[in-house]
Amino acid sequence: MARLRVGLAGLGRMGRIHAASLTWGCPSASLAAVFDADTARAAEVGARLGVPAATSYAELLSEVDAVAVATPTATHADLVVAAAAAGLPVFCEKPLSLDRDVTVSTLDAVRAAGVPLQVGFHRRFDPDWVAATARIHAGELGDVYLFRTSLRDMRSPRPDFLAGSGGFFIDVTIHDLDTARWMVGEVVEVSAHGAALSDPGFAELGDIDTALVTLRFESGALGVIDNSRSAGYGYECSTEVVGRSATVRIDNPPRRHYQWLTPGQATYGLVEDFEQRYPEAYAAELEAFARAVLDRAPLRVSGADALAAFDLAVAADRSWRTGLPVRLSPRQTADGVRYGSA
Amino acid sequence: MARLRVGLAGLGRMGRIHAASLTWGCPSASLAAVFDADTARAAEVGARLGVPAATSYAELLSEVDAVAVATPTATHADLVVAAAAAGLPVFCEKPLSLDRDVTVSTLDAVRAAGVPLQVGFHRRFDPDWVAATARIHAGELGDVYLFRTSLRDMRSPRPDFLAGSGGFFIDVTIHDLDTARWMVGEVVEVSAHGAALSDPGFAELGDIDTALVTLRFESGALGVIDNSRSAGYGYECSTEVVGRSATVRIDNPPRRHYQWLTPGQATYGLVEDFEQRYPEAYAAELEAFARAVLDRAPLRVSGADALAAFDLAVAADRSWRTGLPVRLSPRQTADGVRYGSA
Amino acid sequence: MARLRVGLAGLGRMGRIHAASLTWGCPSASLAAVFDADTARAAEVGARLGVPAATSYAELLSEVDAVAVATPTATHADLVVAAAAAGLPVFCEKPLSLDRDVTVSTLDAVRAAGVPLQVGFHRRFDPDWVAATARIHAGELGDVYLFRTSLRDMRSPRPDFLAGSGGFFIDVTIHDLDTARWMVGEVVEVSAHGAALSDPGFAELGDIDTALVTLRFESGALGVIDNSRSAGYGYECSTEVVGRSATVRIDNPPRRHYQWLTPGQATYGLVEDFEQRYPEAYAAELEAFARAVLDRAPLRVSGADALAAFDLAVAADRSWRTGLPVRLSPRQTADGVRYGSA
Amino acid sequence: MARLRVGLAGLGRMGRIHAASLTWGCPSASLAAVFDADTARAAEVGARLGVPAATSYAELLSEVDAVAVATPTATHADLVVAAAAAGLPVFCEKPLSLDRDVTVSTLDAVRAAGVPLQVGFHRRFDPDWVAATARIHAGELGDVYLFRTSLRDMRSPRPDFLAGSGGFFIDVTIHDLDTARWMVGEVVEVSAHGAALSDPGFAELGDIDTALVTLRFESGALGVIDNSRSAGYGYECSTEVVGRSATVRIDNPPRRHYQWLTPGQATYGLVEDFEQRYPEAYAAELEAFARAVLDRAPLRVSGADALAAFDLAVAADRSWRTGLPVRLSPRQTADGVRYGSA
Repeated sequence: MARLRVGLAGLGRMGRIHAASLTWGCPSASLAAVFDADTARAAEVGARLGVPAATSYAELLSEVDAVAVATPTATHADLVVAAAAAGLPVFCEKPLSLDRDVTVSTLDAVRAAGVPLQVGFHRRFDPDWVAATARIHAGELGDVYLFRTSLRDMRSPRPDFLAGSGGFFIDVTIHDLDTARWMVGEVVEVSAHGAALSDPGFAELGDIDTALVTLRFESGALGVIDNSRSAGYGYECSTEVVGRSATVRIDNPPRRHYQWLTPGQATYGLVEDFEQRYPEAYAAELEAFARAVLDRAPLRVSGADALAAFDLAVAADRSWRTGLPVRLSPRQTADGVRYGSA
Repeated sequence: MARLRVGLAGLGRMGRIHAASLTWGCPSASLAAVFDADTARAAEVGARLGVPAATSYAELLSEVDAVAVATPTATHADLVVAAAAAGLPVFCEKPLSLDRDVTVSTLDAVRAAGVPLQVGFHRRFDPDWVAATARIHAGELGDVYLFRTSLRDMRSPRPDFLAGSGGFFIDVTIHDLDTARWMVGEVVEVSAHGAALSDPGFAELGDIDTALVTLRFESGALGVIDNSRSAGYGYECSTEVVGRSATVRIDNPPRRHYQWLTPGQATYGLVEDFEQRYPEAYAAELEAFARAVLDRAPLRVSGADALAAFDLAVAADRSWRTGLPVRLSPRQTADGVRYGSA
Repeated sequence: MARLRVGLAGLGRMGRIHAASLTWGCPSASLAAVFDADTARAAEVGARLGVPAATSYAELLSEVDAVAVATPTATHADLVVAAAAAGLPVFCEKPLSLDRDVTVSTLDAVRAAGVPLQVGFHRRFDPDWVAATARIHAGELGDVYLFRTSLRDMRSPRPDFLAGSGGFFIDVTIHDLDTARWMVGEVVEVSAHGAALSDPGFAELGDIDTALVTLRFESGALGVIDNSRSAGYGYECSTEVVGRSATVRIDNPPRRHYQWLTPGQATYGLVEDFEQRYPEAYAAELEAFARAVLDRAPLRVSGADALAAFDLAVAADRSWRTGLPVRLSPRQTADGVRYGSA
Repeated sequence: MARLRVGLAGLGRMGRIHAASLTWGCPSASLAAVFDADTARAAEVGARLGVPAATSYAELLSEVDAVAVATPTATHADLVVAAAAAGLPVFCEKPLSLDRDVTVSTLDAVRAAGVPLQVGFHRRFDPDWVAATARIHAGELGDVYLFRTSLRDMRSPRPDFLAGSGGFFIDVTIHDLDTARWMVGEVVEVSAHGAALSDPGFAELGDIDTALVTLRFESGALGVIDNSRSAGYGYECSTEVVGRSATVRIDNPPRRHYQWLTPGQATYGLVEDFEQRYPEAYAAELEAFARAVLDRAPLRVSGADALAAFDLAVAADRSWRTGLPVRLSPRQTADGVRYGSA
């Protein structure tokens, strides 16, 4: 059984997760080489995993069948464009760019090169979400009335990460906006509220740590997203969709499946980060990418999906800044829905 | 042990719940007499419970120590004012009126008469909510970051009820608005979104069946309420408060505490209405009312609380109609906070 | 609506629970008078609840329609026989006696008098257990393969109570043995194991604090009961029945329906005693008793059931003492199954 | 990082699970070669996974650093002895043999060869069980009062498997017996009850499908195991340990972490087999084996553990056949505790 030989660029936290997935978790893919701007880190990881460490991105591209990009956001667009120019399928962490024009030109380059591009919306590959969404799409839930989702981190990232994150909506909410579109459909209005409550550093950066984003879907359904940088108790990713025939709830599982009972109370552990919450999704998204590339089949997340979620995140950011709802008119393009404010 | 002899006006669904509570559920209160505009119904209930059926509200007032009003909303204000004029403590279902001026004049009459008035915000008396809120007020949760609550009915009420309900925000959301103020504090901005999705009848009445209300608290915390007239799966009343030191979650309990396992799946029953959800709260609110009256102690819900929740519901209604946030400035009055739009 | 006027003998812990039920919890019954060997206690409770305090049991019998007996076990048989002689229906806490001959002669006296007798197997009246068992009896579970139940106290009772309790199997296990018969059917073999682990006082009394009782039902199904005097974490009463078509699980609900989340863990409260576990069952058993008496309908727990559970408890005690299984042959009598070792 | 190159013998269901683990799930091990008596099957699996398919067991042994044996039970002992003779560390599925003498001589051969041997008690490597047991061993639970565990299959295996399984206690209960020893300590008395209820085929084989095994530990604590071949609703593996300071409960997680709500009821999926229940344990046991071999560290499950669990299973079988308890005296040997009936 042939495997897709994937080169991995970027060996930070997400890069190391992908390295592990490509080494042990993907029947259809293998880790073929690694690259990092920190060449010592690349050498160390390559040696440990038994794969070559490329000393340049160009070298990486020359040695592999496809590339996975997990570098800092500011470099995503260039690396994707270079991979496309080399004719290689690309998996890239979200977002493609913090700039809409760059995002569009990147997608144009990918389309021109005719290479597959998958963006890292891992929740679309988590088995729980996949199973629940399949039932919604099969009509078991009926018309959707209400979509509700939470995405919360236990602790804030460091200030230097925040400064380059593109802001809360583009860094965090974008995952929920993609989930909303995937599970329910297109969004035509976004209203956002935000607050900086846990640390004065957020206000100093002009950023927030708590947000509520209200959605109106094209179907008429309503939706609400809540996000936090500092939920304190743990990592939370949960969704509820209320429909005419049924309602589905995806909650956080406990950290471990045991309860500890002491006089008068029971205690169980909570998941504390996304790695604990998604033991399968990160490998599953790379496996799906590799399988689709090998089979020349369509990807389950397109570049147009990445742009649509980005545009919704920008709309949320604008709504938060102006205090007013933002309406969007999904515009059809050759490769699917593309968002843009009216 | 003396009990407060309570006369009950109104023997519809809530009235019958209160009749049962006063007969079997309140150590400090007893059912002394009943009244209903439908005198045959009053006679039937009185005979069954072994208490006199008054043939007029005036007669009811003459036979009791205090009165509980569970008649249609349109009659609340007059009945409360008459009870106050008779010097009787009053428990009244919410809302006092659909009209703000009438609400204020009713509160003025109650204050002038010097009688206690408690409005039917039963959730403040449910043991689960009481315990959780006590811990918040004791500081165990720390600064609040986010308040989230759901109140959903399984099925819509009949159109004739809807027509006189005052609209979704005043009929339903008002409970969550009171809960928000109780648990977290004063609200300074309300944004509301609504949709009529389950039945064309809602749109015909100019009403909605699904709503999202976003709150900004005076403390800076954010809040969100979701409401439904037709959640389908059951009755839902659940709340989450995320804070700096802890987070509390109050969820719906199952209908019964057993699970039924068949090949590959487990099933348990859901609560379907507020009676199943609140087996203790309705008796507890009347017990607390009676206990406070007998002890000449302050009530746990004041007339000012009723007006404050009403004003927030009106603000939600206005936000929904205009598509714009509504800011409020809590104004201090002699008997506590009183709301009014800026 | 006529109510059965019930006289209550015994105002210890269970007596006070029954007093509250008869005062506030039973539509078909009312508390008519109270009696206790401690006449001061009776006077105090009577005054508080507004009912006469009889100064003798005979006086109590003369003032009521039926009697509920919640006195110490050693007095049960005499009080039941006296009530029967007075022609009064009787509700009596379990067990009727620690002596089998006395139990049989008491049942004979009751039968001769033609009065209804209900023994306090409250679990048969808990709404969760009633609903689950109804589905079993309706055939939804199919043939039973395995019955499993736990009954555990949080803390041991005081040594003076233990000394007169009849031993662990007759005091505690008897409830599970009745549940086993009710849910699954007759038992033909009992094997018991016991240990005294939590306190040397148990061994000094020749008693145990931990037990496992294995059952073989007439149908061929197996069953196991575990019991503890000192489970530490709380009160536990839970049952599982595994069948060909389905399996049912009745677990302890949490003490309150909220969870408290702190960094990395969630906590919820546990029920700590039988009052918290059975908020409805104690009132429901008295309501069912009153309703059946008023309607001249059969009782849901017969005297034969009390004897059968007693005999199984004695068999468990013998098995524990001998280390050998005890076989039983259910013998049919005029009023139902009556146990006796082969 | 060097990995242990493991040869896999036996490519049935468990063999394929181990093949996947060694290919994708073990950082410290790799699949080096495969062997199966069905050489076509071996060739197919080898080709798919990119490793050589040995045409004989001897050939397999010559190509690898260690061997994992997942062949039918009847061949275990010979294959283990051959691996030991070749000086290779061995991982072997349980049981080593259905015959005690063969088991002992196999262990003798392994000891003589000085090679590490790990038997497939996978539950000792599941993260939930590991975490809970670590807390017990650290003393957080205090003295153990009661151990309770369930192991149930959803559906019976085929009759031809049953015929060579060694019977219910040796095939199934052995896992719980090992768990009991691991979590609580040595067992000194076993009493077993069994029944054939789901299919007449069990009685025809002289076997059972439902069992209850009661344990008395050396510490005085009691334990109970229930097992089923045909629980119907799904696969169950759950344990509870009640102690002086705390109680721990390990329950089955749901199959997926979402609930589906329809009018009046919520449904979630159940795990149906051991692969779904133990997504990590099978890889973790091989990883632990490889890590210990590479580090020349002691194994977490010894050959003596395998013999001890086997002896307890035989004792359960004898107790079931005789209807009498079986007492055991753990006898100390050079490499740890070794069981034998008194």
